[in-house]
Order: sequence, then C-alpha cells, then structure tokens
Amino acid sequence: MLTEALVAVRHGGQTPVATPTCTPCPSSSSSQPSSGTLLAQSVSTQETPGSGLHACAKPCETERSATPTVTERVSRSRYLSERGNSIRQQRGILQEGFLLYSQDKYHETDRPDGIINLGTSENKLCYDLLHDRLTRPDMLQLDPPLLQYSDWRGHQFLREEVAKFLTDYCCSPKPLKAENVVVMNGCASLFSCIAAVVCDPKDAMLVATPFYGAITEHLGLYTDVKLYHVHLDSEASSEDGRLFHLTVDKLEEGLRRARHEGFTVRGLVLMNPHNPLADIYTPKEMVGFLEFAKRNELHAIVDEVYMLSVFDDSVTFSSVLSLESVPDPQRTHVMWGLGKDFAMAGIRVGTLYTENRDLVEAAAKLGAFHGLPGTTQKQVAQLLQDRDWIDKQYLPGNRSRLKAAHRYLTGELQGLDIPYVDSPAAMFVWADLRKYLAEPTFEDELCLWRHFLKHKVVLSCGQAFSCSTPGWFRIVFSDQDHRLRLGMKRIKAALEEYKDPITITDCLSIRDGGHKVRTSGRDPDSAAIVRPSSPQGRSSDLPEEKDNTVHAGLDADELVVDCQTSKPAEGLDSLIGTLRHQIRSSSWLEKNTPELSAGEDPEILDVFKALLERARK
Amino acid sequence: MLTEALVAVRHGGQTPVATPTCTPCPSSSSSQPSSGTLLAQSVSTQETPGSGLHACAKPCETERSATPTVTERVSRSRYLSERGNSIRQQRGILQEGFLLYSQDKYHETDRPDGIINLGTSENKLCYDLLHDRLTRPDMLQLDPPLLQYSDWRGHQFLREEVAKFLTDYCCSPKPLKAENVVVMNGCASLFSCIAAVVCDPKDAMLVATPFYGAITEHLGLYTDVKLYHVHLDSEASSEDGRLFHLTVDKLEEGLRRARHEGFTVRGLVLMNPHNPLADIYTPKEMVGFLEFAKRNELHAIVDEVYMLSVFDDSVTFSSVLSLESVPDPQRTHVMWGLGKDFAMAGIRVGTLYTENRDLVEAAAKLGAFHGLPGTTQKQVAQLLQDRDWIDKQYLPGNRSRLKAAHRYLTGELQGLDIPYVDSPAAMFVWADLRKYLAEPTFEDELCLWRHFLKHKVVLSCGQAFSCSTPGWFRIVFSDQDHRLRLGMKRIKAALEEYKDPITITDCLSIRDGGHKVRTSGRDPDSAAIVRPSSPQGRSSDLPEEKDNTVHAGLDADELVVDCQTSKPAEGLDSLIGTLRHQIRSSSWLEKNTPELSAGEDPEILDVFKALLERARK
Repeated sequence: MLTEALVAVRHGGQTPVATPTCTPCPSSSSSQPSSGTLLAQSVSTQETPGSGLHACAKPCETERSATPTVTERVSRSRYLSERGNSIRQQRGILQEGFLLYSQDKYHETDRPDGIINLGTSENKLCYDLLHDRLTRPDMLQLDPPLLQYSDWRGHQFLREEVAKFLTDYCCSPKPLKAENVVVMNGCASLFSCIAAVVCDPKDAMLVATPFYGAITEHLGLYTDVKLYHVHLDSEASSEDGRLFHLTVDKLEEGLRRARHEGFTVRGLVLMNPHNPLADIYTPKEMVGFLEFAKRNELHAIVDEVYMLSVFDDSVTFSSVLSLESVPDPQRTHVMWGLGKDFAMAGIRVGTLYTENRDLVEAAAKLGAFHGLPGTTQKQVAQLLQDRDWIDKQYLPGNRSRLKAAHRYLTGELQGLDIPYVDSPAAMFVWADLRKYLAEPTFEDELCLWRHFLKHKVVLSCGQAFSCSTPGWFRIVFSDQDHRLRLGMKRIKAALEEYKDPITITDCLSIRDGGHKVRTSGRDPDSAAIVRPSSPQGRSSDLPEEKDNTVHAGLDADELVVDCQTSKPAEGLDSLIGTLRHQIRSSSWLEKNTPELSAGEDPEILDVFKALLERARK
Repeated sequence: MLTEALVAVRHGGQTPVATPTCTPCPSSSSSQPSSGTLLAQSVSTQETPGSGLHACAKPCETERSATPTVTERVSRSRYLSERGNSIRQQRGILQEGFLLYSQDKYHETDRPDGIINLGTSENKLCYDLLHDRLTRPDMLQLDPPLLQYSDWRGHQFLREEVAKFLTDYCCSPKPLKAENVVVMNGCASLFSCIAAVVCDPKDAMLVATPFYGAITEHLGLYTDVKLYHVHLDSEASSEDGRLFHLTVDKLEEGLRRARHEGFTVRGLVLMNPHNPLADIYTPKEMVGFLEFAKRNELHAIVDEVYMLSVFDDSVTFSSVLSLESVPDPQRTHVMWGLGKDFAMAGIRVGTLYTENRDLVEAAAKLGAFHGLPGTTQKQVAQLLQDRDWIDKQYLPGNRSRLKAAHRYLTGELQGLDIPYVDSPAAMFVWADLRKYLAEPTFEDELCLWRHFLKHKVVLSCGQAFSCSTPGWFRIVFSDQDHRLRLGMKRIKAALEEYKDPITITDCLSIRDGGHKVRTSGRDPDSAAIVRPSSPQGRSSDLPEEKDNTVHAGLDADELVVDCQTSKPAEGLDSLIGTLRHQIRSSSWLEKNTPELSAGEDPEILDVFKALLERARK
C-alpha cells in the first residue's frame, strides 16, 4: 500500500545522515541504567561521514524519554522533586506545536492572523454530523448508576456495545466478548496501563520509526518504560520500492540489538493504519509481525485508532480482530477509540480488546486514574449502537470529506514538486521536504518547522516521530476547507521564502552587528525557542557533551535570547544549527569567534572552529 | 467538633493492642528500600503483651502499599511483569467490599436478597434533584472545541467557573484565579499527579490514621510514593475528651520518626471534613497543621471533597481557601470535586487549587492520562454557574436529607448501645463495634466484616483506614431510606447472631470432623475469602515471616478452601484469626495439630503450639 507518488527529489551533493541506532534514554528517575550503553542516547553504530563530532555521547539522564524534545531551558523548581522537574521540563515537538497553536488559534473573524494547525492529528471535518447526532434527546438519558462508581473497566453496557461494534466493524469471525473489553479515557491511558502491567521499570518495547511520538510519553511518564527504536529507511527498498518499509527481519535485528544492549524487551508497538505514514499493513504482514512477537514472547500492542478512516474505496483494511487465528492471543492487545475515527479527540474514549484476563484485571486496578464519566459512557454506547447513523451518515460523510481533503493537499504538494507517501487512510500526509533543508540535519528541520510557525501554520516535523532522516513532515489535512487552503497558502509562502537563505531570519539574526544573538528576528512573538533533539541524539553536528560546557563558557550577557521574554537562553546547539542560514550573509561568526571562545573551557574554541569550517562549506 | 456521643464500651479484661508505628511498605518495584527498617512492615515499637510472636518482621516486598489488603492468593500471571502481578494482586478492603457489592447488588424487586452497600462513600440521596438538572436542554450544548483536544488542565471556561465557585463557596477573601485551577477525572488522578511531581519514588507523605485508605493506592500504584502513618488514639484525650485527636505534636513526632527511619518526607495529607471520622478541623487547627508543614517544607495536600456536605446548621466549615493568609501558599494544594458534594461519584470530576504554577505546569504534562470529556466539562460548568439551583434546590435538599439519614442511623446505633463519633458532616458515621469482637484483633474485625457480608450488607472496617485499634467501622448513611433501613436491619441481625460464638460459622467451619477447612460454612457464595493485614502488620497474633512457611508445610490436599472455587487457598494467618470462634465448640485443632505440623519446617509446630495456647485462653 505504501507507494511513493512522486520520485523523491534529493539534494545533489548532500550527504545523507547515516541511520543511527537509537538507544532509549533513561529517565531522570533512573540512577542506574541497566547497562553502560544506556547512558549514551546518541551513540551511532555507524560512522557518520565528515566529522568525529557525530560520535556524540551525552548522558541524557535529565530527560524523561527518547522523544525528540524541544525543551526550553525551564528553570528548576525548588518545590518539585527531581521527577517533578523532569516531568515539567518535558516538551515534545507535537506538544509544543499544539501549545503555540492553543495560545494563538486562527479564527476567521476574531483572529485571522492566528495559527492554522495542520500539525495535530484531529479530524475537524465532521462537526455538523456530530452536532446533529450528539444533541438528540437520547444523549440526555440518565439513570442512577451513571452517577455512581462503576466498574473501572467501563460500564457493562458500554463494554457490550464496544464488543458488538468491534465484532461488526473489524469483521471478527466470531462475536467478541464484553469481558475482553476495557474502556478508558483515551489511548494514552491504555498505553500507560498496559506498560505498567506487562513491563517493569526500565523495560522496553520495540517500535519502528517514524512513529507517533507521544507514545514515548504514554509509556515513559508514569511507568518508566522505554521505546527501543527500529529505524526504517526513507529510501525506497530495492525489493518493492516502498519507503519506510517495516519487515520482520528489521524487527528481529532490532530485538537482537536491544537485547545485546541490555534491554529487557517486553513488547512491540504496531500502528495500523500507521501514524505518521498513514499506510496499511496487509493481513499477511501483520501476521508476520505477530508471529515474530509470539516467537519472542513479546506483547503486541496494536493501535488501530484510524481503522475506520480509510477513505480509498479500493483499499481494504484488515483489523487484527478479523484474523481467524491470532498467533498469540494472550499477548495481543488491540486498541481503538473514538478520538480519530469519530472525530472526537476531546471526548477521551479509548478501548482495549484483549483475551488476556490477567492483563484486564491488572489494568482495572489502575482504572481509578483513567475513568470516564458514566454519562459519557452512556452517550458513547448510544452512538455506537446507532448503526443507521454510522453507516448511512457518518462514515460515508467522513470518508468522502477525508478523500476530498487528501486530494486537495496532495494536489498542492504535487504542484510544489514535493514528494509524499501516498496512502489510503488517516488524516495526514507524510511529505518529504528534504529539498528545502540547507543541510540534512535535524537542526535545519527544526528551523524549517519554526519558519512555518512564523508563517502561522503548525506542521509536525519528522524528529517528533523519531524519523531517522531529517526533512520529513506530517501535514494534517482533516480541517475545514477554508482553513486547509489558508494553511496551504501559508506553507507555500513559507517555503517560497525559505528557498532564499538571505531572507531567513527565523532562527537567528544579528542585531546591530553586536554580540546579541536573537531568535526570530522578524517576528519574535510567534516563534518558539526550541532545543532540538534528533532520534540519534540532540544534534547530528555538534558533540552533545559540549553543550553545557559551551554555555558555561559564554558570558551570560553575551547571549541574549529575547524571543519570548519569559524564556531563558536557548541551547547553543540549537542556535548553532541555524547559524548556517546566516553565515552566507554575515561575517558575524568569524568576527566573534574569539570572543565566544573566551570562556573558561578551552574546548569551546575547537568546537567553534570545527563549526566554522562546516558552516563555510 | 469531635465528641463522643456515648461512652465507649470496652471489653472487660481484654488487653488492647498496642498502638504501633506503621512503617510504609516498599512496593514490589523496590529492590532497595531506603533503609533496612523499611523492610519490616509490621515491627512494633512497643512490646505487645503475651507473646514474642508479635515482633513479626515479614518483608513485604510483594506488596504495593501499606494499605491493609484482603488480597486473595491470586496466582502469578506469566504474562505480566513483577509490577503487573503486584498491581493485579492488589486488593484493599474498600475495593473488595465494592466488588462483592457490584456482583450482587440489592434491588427492591429484581434482587431483594442482594447486598446493601453501606461501605462505599457515595451519596445516593439526591438522584431526583440531579436528574431534574442534568436533563435540562443546556446540558446538550455543544461546540467544536468540546470535541477537540484541549488544555490538559481543563478547558478555560471550566477553570474559570471552578475558580468562581470556589471563591464563593469557600468564602475566599479574594477572587480565586482560573490559572491556579486544574480539573481532572477525579481526585485519585490529582493525588497521583501531585505525588508524581512533588515526590521521587520511595518518598513519603505523612497522614494521620484512620484515613481514607484508597489514598494509599492513589499515591502508590503509579508513583511509588509512601504514606507514613501517624496513628491517632481511639481513646479520648485527657485534654478535651476528643477521640482520634490530631495535634501538631503528633505530626512533629511522626515526622521525626519517619525521618529517623530514613524516609524523605515531602508532604502531609489532610482531609477536612475528615474521612472516615467525618469531623471538621477549626481554622486554628488547620493553620497549625499548615504552619507545621511550612516549618518542615512539606507540601500540604488538603482534601476538602466533603466541604458542602456539612448538614449540621450550627457548624461552620472553613476551607483553607477562606484563610486571609495561607502559611505557605506555594506548598498548599486544595482538592475538591463533584463526586461527594454533588453526589456524582460517577461523573469523575476533581479540582485542584494551588498557587504553585510549577506544580500546575508539571501536573498538566500528565494530563493526557487524566482528561475529562469536553462535553462533561461543559456540563459541569453549566451546573456550577447555576447558583439558583445550587442554593435553592440542591444544597438545602441534600443537607436536609443527609441530616435525616444521619439522625436515623445514629438513633439506631444508640439503640444498640454502639458508641460512635458524632460529627456534623459527610455521609458516614465512624462507629465503635469493639464490644462485638471476641478479641481486639484485626482478624476478629475482618471476621465481623465478613459476617456483615454474609448478612448481605457491606460496611468498611477500620483496617481499611489503617486505624490502629481493631473494631471500628465506617457506616455510610447517604442511601435511600428503604435501603438504609434494610441495611440497618441486616446489621442488627448480623450483630445479634455474632454475639453468640456458637452460631458463627462465617469464617471457619469444620466439615465431617475431617481435615477440610472451609470458610463461610453457611453461605459459601456470599463471603469473601480475605487475607487480613493490619496497619501494624498482617497479623497481630502470628509472626508474618511464618506465613509462607506454614503454607509450605501443609499438604495442599489438607487445606481446601472452596468458598469460591476460583479462589486458591486462604492465607493461614487469616484462618487462624477465626479459629478462636471455633475453638470453644470443637476439638479439631487439638486433634489435628500433629498432622498440621508434619511439614518440612520444624517451626510450624512451635507456631501452632503457641497459637493453640492462645486460642485456649
């Protein structure tokens, strides 16, 4: 299913960054990672061409997870614990994008200059259909048990309705059972519960990258479970021409490597339809993955939250629940929810189907943290049993709207000669913007992400999904036509401007030829100060262990980042990544190198010299 | 406020169990408790008269918390991790009672022999008022943001409404601010979030006992934070005649002891109105506690979920938010919710008010696990702003109904000559049933709890609240009149029967004079097989470290517990506690002691001999 609509346009003469091994990062609550190698988030097993600087090995004890973060330098709070500070400082790119959008939402009349959000995977196409259904009188049904404590797995009536629904819409060969269903307030909660009960702290689960980055927090924040990344290749495979092609061999290799590095691997996370690739695994492929999991006694967590958002009529999605026989039913756990397929991210309903009663029992013990209001449970049951509305109104309406929006977006991308993964499902397109990067680095990718923000459109860049190759972006198309078109207009304007490095001042500008370093020269209020982190480490260009040192070496007065006054100095490695856009039009770096190196650490000079050499290229 | 309505009736000649120091139990995820003493949950600092057996010191690494549990011997699941197995095996008495009730709920016509639940703190008195309000058309208001992702602290409109509500109903001297409000799906979630961000794993918070036992799981399950118990005395204090009287001195002493035992104490949990005592702290007392917290840099988590359930008109409750000046506002966090005061435990709405923005920021990062549906948030906001309904209908109606139910229950207790704590608030009475225990042990208390269950009424016994003295029960009165009266009738019948030990077969009966041990001889389907645990350890009569040994020494065929066929053998220490009821009418123990001691461990015989000696007394 995964085909490339256009031939990938590659930058001539650019050296792709070698695909690294990602080693999950121990959380701050860890003082004793299970092996010495775990300390190094960013050690690459392959030599990266060009510089020994790539063999960076910054201990990442202060991070909660391996998610690429755009963490600001939030000051440590004396009121919070180490764990609390670490949690507070957590900020992924997806969350960051959403936060910025939340503070400055586009509104047609009230805030026409607000941000258009094509970064968060939400379906905003069906509000009229939902409003019609959710305001009918049956949504106000109330009886006493709805206001009382209930089974933490969800009310029996809802679990029965979910079982029936999944039986029908997943084409299960036999009726699914209510006792195998758990309903909680969203799939984040289900991920957390499953991780808590099938893993011990520091255990790991495999996941192929790119993947929906928030899962890292779902598994990491409460339960301290790591995601071990199996990086997929952005180049078409020689066998079938597919990009980012997951195979059992890659999983086997990833598992072997993870175990070699000392991880106890307990599970495998699969998404089907995939996020962010939006492609679909065939039943044969899925069975292969599940058999791999069975062979290795891994739990398979299969996230099918986009299963009803397949808008290409020629394509059939097959749920794991449709299989005549699941290889290891006791270790296969299937998630679904109303957030994506019923366009209600705000309704917080996630469902789990598993035949493993032990897991259900254990998860229920955590249910007090993840309960849904009884009234919502009733409404959801009413909705799921209204097959007439679902089959005749909602699903056809939603699919045709998704299809039209997808057609519009991909048409625009084609017009821009931007390659993308052509997929039949979900609500986003995985697009290849590598040609816009000056260098194939995650700093450049982040700079482009910020540049979109400056143009008041949020996208999600590849590092938010731990993609191993910089330059890919997930573009959500499931928004109302006028917003999607305006978003696309802003994307185009941003890319047009981005082509000309002279005009790029998003990431760094020089004020008055002096020593002040600014971000977002043109539009200081709209740009985020972010600190990049790539799946293979925080920077592919700068030794991470120098990060704090470089900061220590700088006079605080010399480095002023005043993009958002409440935010302290940006990490130098982030600034450095964007210096390249300036270097061609400014002699600032050359002028100031001696001054910047006048700190206490003599290594700074070496770092800057190396950078200067690279920037001049 | 806390006065004793009747003089406590004490058992002549019985030796009260010494009040122990409770040392929180490290969870299973702990391999290294912070000090050696932490391994021993049950070491008493005071010598208990009669036997060296009291100095038990069973390592409790397999437990998740210090909550008294009635854990069955659930077999270990090979699919779950150590943590998962530990979570699955978790079962507190409150949860156990609710579970049994859920499986066999009383219904006037459909199931008249079902269980009446006077054990779970739920208000079932106001359904008519709530139904009237919650089915009005404004509850169906919908707009797009309600179906979309929102601020994890809660929608702005709701936080504003909560701030206004708390300002008014807590009599805040200045308007409370929306940005200090966090709304999540219940106070369990808020406890978990706060614990996660102000504590590191294994850190502790102080709490005075008895206290609402579920908080142990709220702090322990995800975040591995311990509650360090400060035991209050069930005897009236010499100064003011108050039972279970919390003082700053006791807190100071508890803190000193906790630190001496190696705990890092980060906070203090306070409940006002109190659960289970239902009493109210004066502003002066509360300020004293808060100043204690400030002096010691402890976070004060103040749970005020019963603040509007004060039904005695002569009593004024003062919220912490009513104080002109809070001693340490950055470390004072006030919880409220709709579950109790608005009689909607099933609606899952908990609110936090704190001036500590760092904490709010950090808690928000965990918000994806604790989100409420946007539609519910809207409904709650509508409800909270309907002051006419609240002030003229709901609150007066609720209070008068609570008052009437309280009057009925306390009248009945007086008729039975059962002492109780006379309190002006909440929805339960803390009653002293010590006179019904054959011995002042937690085994006997649990036996009485089971006996109530046999009579189809659930109460909550003191060990569920870590009460240091066996024999206290929390009786919930906020149920419909016909159920409350039927529940009381069943309580009376149970107590009447319990007075005569010959008739008591709930806990142990002998079949055919043989070797089979049965629980609940008369009514095998209704009684729980439970394993007692007292605040100071699992048993006050049997050395805990012998537990597994004794089991190992028994022939599995010899010990058959077939009360519920799916449940494996009950812990011997639980059975032992009930043997006393049999010993007077049976020679079984004496006959069978040699056979029971024929196992591999020679210590078994000693244990049994000691037990036999004690049982004969």
